[in-house]
Amino acid sequence: MSDKMVLTAALAGASPKKSQNPAIPYTPEEFAEEAYKAWNEGVSVVHIHARDPDTGEADWTVERFRDINNAIQDRCPELIINMTSSGRPENPIETRLERIEILKPELASFNTNSMNLAFLNWKTGEVVREFVYPNPFWFMQKLAKAMRATKTKPECEIFDFGGMHNINILRMRDDLFEEPMHFQLVFGVAGGIPFDLHAFARLKDLLPDGATWSVCGVSKQQFQAGMVAAVNGGHIRVGMEDNIRMPNRELAKGNWELVRWAAQVTKLAGREVANAEEARQILNIPPR
Amino acid sequence: MSDKMVLTAALAGASPKKSQNPAIPYTPEEFAEEAYKAWNEGVSVVHIHARDPDTGEADWTVERFRDINNAIQDRCPELIINMTSSGRPENPIETRLERIEILKPELASFNTNSMNLAFLNWKTGEVVREFVYPNPFWFMQKLAKAMRATKTKPECEIFDFGGMHNINILRMRDDLFEEPMHFQLVFGVAGGIPFDLHAFARLKDLLPDGATWSVCGVSKQQFQAGMVAAVNGGHIRVGMEDNIRMPNRELAKGNWELVRWAAQVTKLAGREVANAEEARQILNIPPR
Amino acid sequence: MSDKMVLTAALAGASPKKSQNPAIPYTPEEFAEEAYKAWNEGVSVVHIHARDPDTGEADWTVERFRDINNAIQDRCPELIINMTSSGRPENPIETRLERIEILKPELASFNTNSMNLAFLNWKTGEVVREFVYPNPFWFMQKLAKAMRATKTKPECEIFDFGGMHNINILRMRDDLFEEPMHFQLVFGVAGGIPFDLHAFARLKDLLPDGATWSVCGVSKQQFQAGMVAAVNGGHIRVGMEDNIRMPNRELAKGNWELVRWAAQVTKLAGREVANAEEARQILNIPPR
Amino acid sequence: MSDKMVLTAALAGASPKKSQNPAIPYTPEEFAEEAYKAWNEGVSVVHIHARDPDTGEADWTVERFRDINNAIQDRCPELIINMTSSGRPENPIETRLERIEILKPELASFNTNSMNLAFLNWKTGEVVREFVYPNPFWFMQKLAKAMRATKTKPECEIFDFGGMHNINILRMRDDLFEEPMHFQLVFGVAGGIPFDLHAFARLKDLLPDGATWSVCGVSKQQFQAGMVAAVNGGHIRVGMEDNIRMPNRELAKGNWELVRWAAQVTKLAGREVANAEEARQILNIPPR
Repeated sequence: MSDKMVLTAALAGASPKKSQNPAIPYTPEEFAEEAYKAWNEGVSVVHIHARDPDTGEADWTVERFRDINNAIQDRCPELIINMTSSGRPENPIETRLERIEILKPELASFNTNSMNLAFLNWKTGEVVREFVYPNPFWFMQKLAKAMRATKTKPECEIFDFGGMHNINILRMRDDLFEEPMHFQLVFGVAGGIPFDLHAFARLKDLLPDGATWSVCGVSKQQFQAGMVAAVNGGHIRVGMEDNIRMPNRELAKGNWELVRWAAQVTKLAGREVANAEEARQILNIPPR
Repeated sequence: MSDKMVLTAALAGASPKKSQNPAIPYTPEEFAEEAYKAWNEGVSVVHIHARDPDTGEADWTVERFRDINNAIQDRCPELIINMTSSGRPENPIETRLERIEILKPELASFNTNSMNLAFLNWKTGEVVREFVYPNPFWFMQKLAKAMRATKTKPECEIFDFGGMHNINILRMRDDLFEEPMHFQLVFGVAGGIPFDLHAFARLKDLLPDGATWSVCGVSKQQFQAGMVAAVNGGHIRVGMEDNIRMPNRELAKGNWELVRWAAQVTKLAGREVANAEEARQILNIPPR
Repeated sequence: MSDKMVLTAALAGASPKKSQNPAIPYTPEEFAEEAYKAWNEGVSVVHIHARDPDTGEADWTVERFRDINNAIQDRCPELIINMTSSGRPENPIETRLERIEILKPELASFNTNSMNLAFLNWKTGEVVREFVYPNPFWFMQKLAKAMRATKTKPECEIFDFGGMHNINILRMRDDLFEEPMHFQLVFGVAGGIPFDLHAFARLKDLLPDGATWSVCGVSKQQFQAGMVAAVNGGHIRVGMEDNIRMPNRELAKGNWELVRWAAQVTKLAGREVANAEEARQILNIPPR
Repeated sequence: MSDKMVLTAALAGASPKKSQNPAIPYTPEEFAEEAYKAWNEGVSVVHIHARDPDTGEADWTVERFRDINNAIQDRCPELIINMTSSGRPENPIETRLERIEILKPELASFNTNSMNLAFLNWKTGEVVREFVYPNPFWFMQKLAKAMRATKTKPECEIFDFGGMHNINILRMRDDLFEEPMHFQLVFGVAGGIPFDLHAFARLKDLLPDGATWSVCGVSKQQFQAGMVAAVNGGHIRVGMEDNIRMPNRELAKGNWELVRWAAQVTKLAGREVANAEEARQILNIPPR
């Protein structure tokens, strides 16, 4: 069982637009449809951000998250929803807690370090857009307690080594996390670390004993990180939040096509794709 | 071009028997057939040891190598033949040179360190069979010169870090190798190093500038090493010399089935399989 | 020459107080005296923050920096002054530029990533004090240009891997830095990375070609990082900003005693301490 | 206690001659004198090979080892003697066991891999002298059992990664070693691995839980490895077997001068030198 692969699709994220890939979902119905097709290809978890259904802009209100959450749950009742707890600096930091406290998702992202979060033109080095993404210790403590209260499993997102060490600092207190913990190693965000075998190997070493872990990566690093994880005991997140193209550089037809890729990788690695019930067991999420 | 994947099949090696996997070739005809089927799935290189056609025992005579070499060339004239320059300690070490000098293969293995070479029962730790495999500097120098004389490209097999450093010591002399060199990173031989991301990352760092490199691995490490190489710029060797099973633990139906696996991995990594002509270009082997 | 060791003393930093170690300087005279004694033991660079001479609190005004800068220059005209370009979030970020533009130091710190900057009770994990330290790309660009205009050499402080990658992103533009660059690897700040041989080895790999580098560390990590740097081609920063105790856990009698330690380490590593003129040559700072 | 530093002097080894450094001991009296002076500087362990007292050539007979062993024990009864179990290929491999079985030293070297053992002109890459050093699994098993019978603690010498993995293979059997084990990481022998922070960090990771470890290095790598070990929990071996010069490239006046260096490093690392009784406790050798 424990060798089965948990596949996650990060359906949309906050940034990519239909102008970049028309399959990016904006409306709750589109999210539900993307989730459903991804589920047919093997995902047990969908990671969601919310969008304004009309403009496609990121929307951080609880209402939008509720609409999307409900639409997905109606369409795919079995799926595990992994809700972002991120935000943008123009909103008060504590608004990032509300959606967790109110919607009580089974799983939610948990950011582990403050950092530059930048969108780059990688050819020229030009910074197209950026902000300082704040995740101070006091907020992480508050978020951990909120998640513990709602029985939401944190998925600790590691953008840099400091994030891993920050978690190990927080683990010195015993009122924040329940072990074994779950991690998402994130490669390729400007401000964090790119995909690199040394970093991959070392982050894996630094995981707490018994932790489960997945990887994701920006653009083609999605494929690099995923294939390395598949043969090293990790799980895979794919999806259009991180990458809108297939390995041959053609636009993905939808999240489902990236999930199909991940399912093929899983099989070539000699593993089987976990269904949602198995995924809960692997990730130490209570059965439903 | 340079991103294309060179697939090698190590058809038989010296050890596995038909009793373990009936597809292991013994006769020249069987070798040719295995090579042909593997070529149909995408290999541009076949790595060969020789066998006694009747008993299946490893045979180190030039004659046997010639028979197998010729049978493969007749059946698949385009293929690059990578001939082993290894041997067994019961034979004088210099016999390892003869087949190179006489048959002048395009490519040949070049062992880089002395080591224990052992066959283990990995469950109990029992050493089933072993020998001390000698590759002293004086012999490596002689072998390098012989290969230079026959225009045989050495494939430097790295079983341990010392092997990489030994090559860098030999490279201090300018009469032994032509750069860029070609390497095979070997994981999982008892006496050497197992597959490990730290070792993989570090060996990759230690390669001479511009070197090309492939990976192979024993048993399921064939799949681990191959998938990691596919997304990190390396080439892949599969084949029944190293591993007789598919990722699902079923016996491989032949080398071709392992090659099919590698070709699928190549595609999922966003790369294309090189044909033999492209492989010569990538590996800096003169065109034919 | 290039093997000579550049010793830096970080005289006071922004945090430690006389209540922790009475040798911490507050007044310009005390700074000058600490610098002088450290110079007698072998430093060629002093890294300075400013303090309110009466209260000892960190003071970020240009006036205070000027007073301290001038007092040190009067007492030790040869010394290289390395001025901090850091700040605290309660001040507008651009105030960090003023002291560089006005006082035009030869060398100044250059922070490379946004991060949590926290003071911890390492026994309990309690966060005593913290802030999100902002170093967005736009500000780094502005700071780099300001330093270029004043001919101030940036000392790129690496608190985490993201910082190294951020610098390599900025280096894609050719109007920001002059190569070879200079780096300070910082170990042990909560929010960044602790001293660790893997991290040390890998950060060293990621340095731009030809870069010079030094290390510093918090508390006893000052000694760990320093000794490893001494035998791996790096330079050493010690000082009471980072650590107020000697290896035997007794309070340092002053920065000079930590510098004496570093000079002894230098000698045991088979290197010689550089004087200020040699340090300018090593760090690619114009001679005076 | 456990933080105290065990200093070993490798007094002579098999190779260096008085023509290279006149302090190299040949006669039992010279060995005893070298041991005594080294003990005065802080060693608790002396590692010994034997020499023909007249010619200075390595001598592998039990008689020579006995003479040297007894001379040292007479002069410094407290010292731990660490006897080599190595040999040269011209002698039957089993002669390496005899001196252990007969003289029953408290500690003895235990070589962990077969390898090229070469003496190089590092400027030209010329191999001055070399042999294939055999340490097959069957012999390691026999040696481990012999040491267990004589209550001799093995010091597992790691010249390459394969050696560490070989030990972990042998540890699958429970009749060979008593845990916690003790290791010596050896850097700089041609045929093995040079000093390198990545290798150092990774070998340290691969040590069995609870193992104690020391480092040694050839030529100036003695100083590099020693200083890194001092601040990372390791112990230090110095001595003229590995290196005949001080960091400033002057000839060492004797092993004692190298030990003095190591004792100074120990102190700068904030540790204390263990006496022989403490060293037995640290290395899990029964008290006398």
